[in-house]
Amino acid sequence: MPRVAYLGPEGTFTEAALWQIAGSGALAGEVEPRSAESPGAALAMVRAGDADYACVPFENSIEGSVIPTLDSLSTGTPLQIYAEHTLDVAFSIVVRPGVGIDRVSTVAAFPVAAAQVRHWLAEHLPSATLVPASSNAGAAQDVAGGRADAGVSTALAAQRWGLDVLAADVVDEPNARTRFVLAAPPGPPPRRTGADRTSVILRLDNTPGALVAAMTEFAVRDIDLTRIESRPTRTELGTYVFFLDCVGHIDDDSVAQALKALHRRCRDVRYLGSWPTGTAAGAVPPSDDDASRWLIGLREGSPTGGSGA
Amino acid sequence: MPRVAYLGPEGTFTEAALWQIAGSGALAGEVEPRSAESPGAALAMVRAGDADYACVPFENSIEGSVIPTLDSLSTGTPLQIYAEHTLDVAFSIVVRPGVGIDRVSTVAAFPVAAAQVRHWLAEHLPSATLVPASSNAGAAQDVAGGRADAGVSTALAAQRWGLDVLAADVVDEPNARTRFVLAAPPGPPPRRTGADRTSVILRLDNTPGALVAAMTEFAVRDIDLTRIESRPTRTELGTYVFFLDCVGHIDDDSVAQALKALHRRCRDVRYLGSWPTGTAAGAVPPSDDDASRWLIGLREGSPTGGSGA
Amino acid sequence: MPRVAYLGPEGTFTEAALWQIAGSGALAGEVEPRSAESPGAALAMVRAGDADYACVPFENSIEGSVIPTLDSLSTGTPLQIYAEHTLDVAFSIVVRPGVGIDRVSTVAAFPVAAAQVRHWLAEHLPSATLVPASSNAGAAQDVAGGRADAGVSTALAAQRWGLDVLAADVVDEPNARTRFVLAAPPGPPPRRTGADRTSVILRLDNTPGALVAAMTEFAVRDIDLTRIESRPTRTELGTYVFFLDCVGHIDDDSVAQALKALHRRCRDVRYLGSWPTGTAAGAVPPSDDDASRWLIGLREGSPTGGSGA
Amino acid sequence: MPRVAYLGPEGTFTEAALWQIAGSGALAGEVEPRSAESPGAALAMVRAGDADYACVPFENSIEGSVIPTLDSLSTGTPLQIYAEHTLDVAFSIVVRPGVGIDRVSTVAAFPVAAAQVRHWLAEHLPSATLVPASSNAGAAQDVAGGRADAGVSTALAAQRWGLDVLAADVVDEPNARTRFVLAAPPGPPPRRTGADRTSVILRLDNTPGALVAAMTEFAVRDIDLTRIESRPTRTELGTYVFFLDCVGHIDDDSVAQALKALHRRCRDVRYLGSWPTGTAAGAVPPSDDDASRWLIGLREGSPTGGSGA
Repeated sequence: MPRVAYLGPEGTFTEAALWQIAGSGALAGEVEPRSAESPGAALAMVRAGDADYACVPFENSIEGSVIPTLDSLSTGTPLQIYAEHTLDVAFSIVVRPGVGIDRVSTVAAFPVAAAQVRHWLAEHLPSATLVPASSNAGAAQDVAGGRADAGVSTALAAQRWGLDVLAADVVDEPNARTRFVLAAPPGPPPRRTGADRTSVILRLDNTPGALVAAMTEFAVRDIDLTRIESRPTRTELGTYVFFLDCVGHIDDDSVAQALKALHRRCRDVRYLGSWPTGTAAGAVPPSDDDASRWLIGLREGSPTGGSGA
Repeated sequence: MPRVAYLGPEGTFTEAALWQIAGSGALAGEVEPRSAESPGAALAMVRAGDADYACVPFENSIEGSVIPTLDSLSTGTPLQIYAEHTLDVAFSIVVRPGVGIDRVSTVAAFPVAAAQVRHWLAEHLPSATLVPASSNAGAAQDVAGGRADAGVSTALAAQRWGLDVLAADVVDEPNARTRFVLAAPPGPPPRRTGADRTSVILRLDNTPGALVAAMTEFAVRDIDLTRIESRPTRTELGTYVFFLDCVGHIDDDSVAQALKALHRRCRDVRYLGSWPTGTAAGAVPPSDDDASRWLIGLREGSPTGGSGA
Repeated sequence: MPRVAYLGPEGTFTEAALWQIAGSGALAGEVEPRSAESPGAALAMVRAGDADYACVPFENSIEGSVIPTLDSLSTGTPLQIYAEHTLDVAFSIVVRPGVGIDRVSTVAAFPVAAAQVRHWLAEHLPSATLVPASSNAGAAQDVAGGRADAGVSTALAAQRWGLDVLAADVVDEPNARTRFVLAAPPGPPPRRTGADRTSVILRLDNTPGALVAAMTEFAVRDIDLTRIESRPTRTELGTYVFFLDCVGHIDDDSVAQALKALHRRCRDVRYLGSWPTGTAAGAVPPSDDDASRWLIGLREGSPTGGSGA
Repeated sequence: MPRVAYLGPEGTFTEAALWQIAGSGALAGEVEPRSAESPGAALAMVRAGDADYACVPFENSIEGSVIPTLDSLSTGTPLQIYAEHTLDVAFSIVVRPGVGIDRVSTVAAFPVAAAQVRHWLAEHLPSATLVPASSNAGAAQDVAGGRADAGVSTALAAQRWGLDVLAADVVDEPNARTRFVLAAPPGPPPRRTGADRTSVILRLDNTPGALVAAMTEFAVRDIDLTRIESRPTRTELGTYVFFLDCVGHIDDDSVAQALKALHRRCRDVRYLGSWPTGTAAGAVPPSDDDASRWLIGLREGSPTGGSGA
């Protein structure tokens, strides 16, 4: 039974993502969840052998990359990503069973969440007092413990604490989504599905030329990049860390060639894995079939390569 | 007296940065600060004419770019950056006057701040109960109002609420720093100082080639990039927004040429300004003097250009 | 009266090109032509002060670049090009006055020319015997001196030696053209006309990267290249000499910027001049006007640069 | 017995190169040489089935590429190169048997050759009269036929016509060399030797960007280019033909990948073959072994790829 560390406490969006990933078949059989207090702590549990996997937030459509996750993945013992799941960010307004909206005078909310449901609160609970909670899941706990009348929390937390849901899918910004990933020690990547993502972390000299050279390796092979982030490392003067996701799998020929070229060219390449995305994350990497047939034709002496075969 | 919107409430790090910027001479004379509840709200006040300037967080060494700030700068009426200030992120542990550490049983803290002073609390206040606050400044207010014995807050907030500082410069991660910027409607940039930064937002087709082409404009001119961030826009399929800071000023010839080239080449370029950084943010853009002399020499008919003059 | 060395002897295509250039106004007033026995010898006369200008073949549409001309321009004391003229390669079949085609049994021809009028000879003089001549002009001299009945020569040579022209504009390959240039010691280039050519010789490290970097300086500025040739130098191991013509004038901003960038980046740049081509040699270098207005607008604080002005 | 067309007549440098190539084992067994009057005519004989191979000059260290050869290879039915041989250009001064230098008053010479032995003639035969010959081999024939006392010709021609050699290896310019190639209809390339050359002809849009893109395919793979030539096609407006030789063999992984990329990217790629050069023509294409091991390691789940294995 795989032990999976996740960004807790119980009832967070991360835990919800974990169950989705487990249900998708990426984790065989039953799962033993283990709460951690930060993405870095969850990943550290895997490195220490206290968990087999870690489920952590990776990227948010509003906030961007989750830098603590990236920082933890980019240093220390290498880890690898095996699966991902994207959740719409949408809150549940929870109350103790039987409590009606007219009896709510205090609302517990993690401050970040409070900011994201401001419009809903202004309309439906204009006179309620906001009580800060320590996390989205903690808001439900505050309600269950009687410290607030209602809470801005998650569907999963409502279920955990036996609460009623006054309103579901509440969020001011309709396109907020978070992508979560499942990481573990390095191993053979999941099989290529044709809708995959590959991720690498590059360490580069801090010159525009170094960055252009690395990106050119993708451009010349027509490989789409879906995330690019670059910041100076504070620890090593004059170097960049370059976080990069592309469409495709290490078993796609074009991606394999790009990885090999980066290995030759960059100061350091950390491979974060290739894994299925379910739906295509972008243009499928160009099939090499036509060019390969042409090349084989040339080697066999066909006048125009194999393209006319 | 310029009205300056800032990410409040009173006593935040952003307000502290604002006073530093005002003190540096970037804002002439007295300043009238106006609290806003988000970076986007502060910038909106400037666009609406309710403030002359906005002071907002831009980049954090631990969390990365402040995406809500970037998003607000990248859309809507153009704004421009005129100054920046970088603050070490370090908290003050505040109490009501005369309260000793032995009498602290509850500690108010914004959850993000709580995570950053965990080690200090574990050592000095191991048995205290954490009470969530709505912001760093709000933690001081909670202490002043008697809702907690101590608070994880800022030096500025302590001063505002007449509180004692039990411990200053408290932070687990010693290198945490936030860069704040001062934005206003477009106008002539501050004069070139030789230690300047220029920032642009590019809208590009989602092809690795488009990105490489844009970065090549900097690489061929040997201009150092200090921040690069790129995410797909969700609104317009197949386009990237590319956030980019480089060393140098629009009045540096190489930077001016690069900007013109981007204007010709990109779907859209939003100029965010050129402003002094105080200390050099990287290599000074290459002086054009030698090459310009050479060119002038050629135009005048000197056999080897002007380099031997 | 300028002394002009040219690839002789009297009556060559080069001499014909020289008179065309003189007539175009590139050379003020009368000209004193001085025959030289090779392009290198003509250029050497200018270097030695024995001539003020040299007129030499530069490129042929069938044979390509005239390498001896390029080699002489690329080494030794710098020279600069001030004008060009392109001639269709077309021969005159010349005879002594009054001699009819039926009385021709021997034909003098420079072997290269003989190969280019083979079809005409096969049709009109199938039984005539070919007599090798030492040059195109020499073939006319052979006819004048009675050493052959007819000659494959130039219109100019026919005139010089008082010969009749049996057939004009004779050539098997209808698109053969040779471009000639007028070179002299370095001096201010002729004024920009809007239809100009600029030429440089680069010395580069023998790496594909060095070549790509140099060409990128033109590509990023959308400058069309009209001739590119590159060969390893035999004298200096691991270096290329890179011959390059582009559309535009050193007074076009984009060309000036590209030249400056090459000066910074290349081991050595030899500027061969900017001169009018009469008709456009390709797309006019992109006008910088729109981008410059945009930049000026930014410097003055216009929200969208100057593009909307 | 393979029939080999060559640039004749009998006794030319091309014929000498043909025998060297035949002797090197590139052609099995006996060879039947067939003289042709131009490089294009020799290649046309192969296309028409009148010869099995053609031996033609390809590049000269003084004159550059032999454009008529390139033009013929770049159009019409595809042909492929299977071998090359480089000859020093050095002339033999030939006389009829028993004739001493003091009895020489006329010298037959192809005008191009005459220009290359000018110094020798000035020193050793200052008063002799030059008689133009129709080719280097023709000069020997003129001597044998009594039309001149001596001839500037080749060692092979002297042997063919039973002439004595007054002086061997005569040439003013000591580094003149010509590279000859053996072409035939497409077929499997000769086996990779580790010291090979690969040649392609690209048809590109006439934009600096297209050229840079093509060259970048070699640059990103660290493949050395040994010849680069580019001219506008006169037939198709706005297109370049780009002649390119690189170090390596189609069976070198990096070369194969570059060829496939060009096939995807260029308007047209004509593969001219991969063949041994005897000695290394430049840096051996980078071995892919380390990067391939790394990639295989990643696929098998090794934390740092296979580089540490």
